Amino acid sequence: MLKEQTKPFRILGIDPGYGIVGYGVVEKTGNRITYVSHGAITTGKEEHFEERLEYIYSEVRRIISDYKPELVAVESLYFYKNVKTAIFVGEARGVILLAIRHSNLPFIEFTPHQVKQTVTGYGRAEKSQIQKVMKILLKLQEIPKPDDAADALAIAWCAAVSHTNTQNIPKIEK
Amino acid sequence: MLKEQTKPFRILGIDPGYGIVGYGVVEKTGNRITYVSHGAITTGKEEHFEERLEYIYSEVRRIISDYKPELVAVESLYFYKNVKTAIFVGEARGVILLAIRHSNLPFIEFTPHQVKQTVTGYGRAEKSQIQKVMKILLKLQEIPKPDDAADALAIAWCAAVSHTNTQNIPKIEK
Repeated sequence: MLKEQTKPFRILGIDPGYGIVGYGVVEKTGNRITYVSHGAITTGKEEHFEERLEYIYSEVRRIISDYKPELVAVESLYFYKNVKTAIFVGEARGVILLAIRHSNLPFIEFTPHQVKQTVTGYGRAEKSQIQKVMKILLKLQEIPKPDDAADALAIAWCAAVSHTNTQNIPKIEK
Repeated sequence: MLKEQTKPFRILGIDPGYGIVGYGVVEKTGNRITYVSHGAITTGKEEHFEERLEYIYSEVRRIISDYKPELVAVESLYFYKNVKTAIFVGEARGVILLAIRHSNLPFIEFTPHQVKQTVTGYGRAEKSQIQKVMKILLKLQEIPKPDDAADALAIAWCAAVSHTNTQNIPKIEK
């Protein structure tokens, strides 16, 4: 067996938002994908929006520092009914991308449709289905909560599955 | 005359975007508003989006460091025909707000309508009208270019005009 195949490759998945940012960490060793961690960064309405952005930025940097992923996968946003919500989520996503960039890590994007398609074979799967599927795929004792963290694990899974295609992502030089 | 009234109060106005971020600096001394500087941060399509965000963030920090404003006024975004564009501008606006926050400065928002209403008395004024009005109000030799920078000067002007109402904005404690 080649040594390269057995070296674990760690991926952080992020589901962007401003009230809740879901995150999930998985590891790929050869063809095996295993669970590392998941959780959520939460911010409250009582805080100023710029405080929420600052907290999200610093938490993403802390999570990267704690789990030391080699790649970060982030869900892309294209479909929002409400433009105002889209702008708020966009603002949060901007500071998340900046945190990844400041951590000198490459990142990859997947649309919600791609993520659902990859983990369930169905691009319109419901959030509760994603939770149940991720519990099975990552051999968890319970369904991952909140659903934003389950989504983040699904995003990380998606990146792990396509990792042979993404191995040549160049490290971003600052 | 009271000393407080004559101390110049410096305001940075920012017109958010991802291709062009306009900025303008004005100073209010007593009731007099004077021009300090204006310009634009530009990023190119050939760069990765996260590189553009990083550049915008670092340039906003540099401009704050160079001009040392006491207040930053940013245009708010609520009306975009295209949700995809709204998200991109939102991402850029997110890193701009983070740069202001990381610089430990208070910020104030104005809608495009409020800005136009204040400087021209008409909420639907055209960009070229804003440029001409700002040239007159700030006694400039030429119209400020690009129009994004003229908008930024108008945003700063708007904050300066309403400054008596914003003097009690607390300095954000980090």
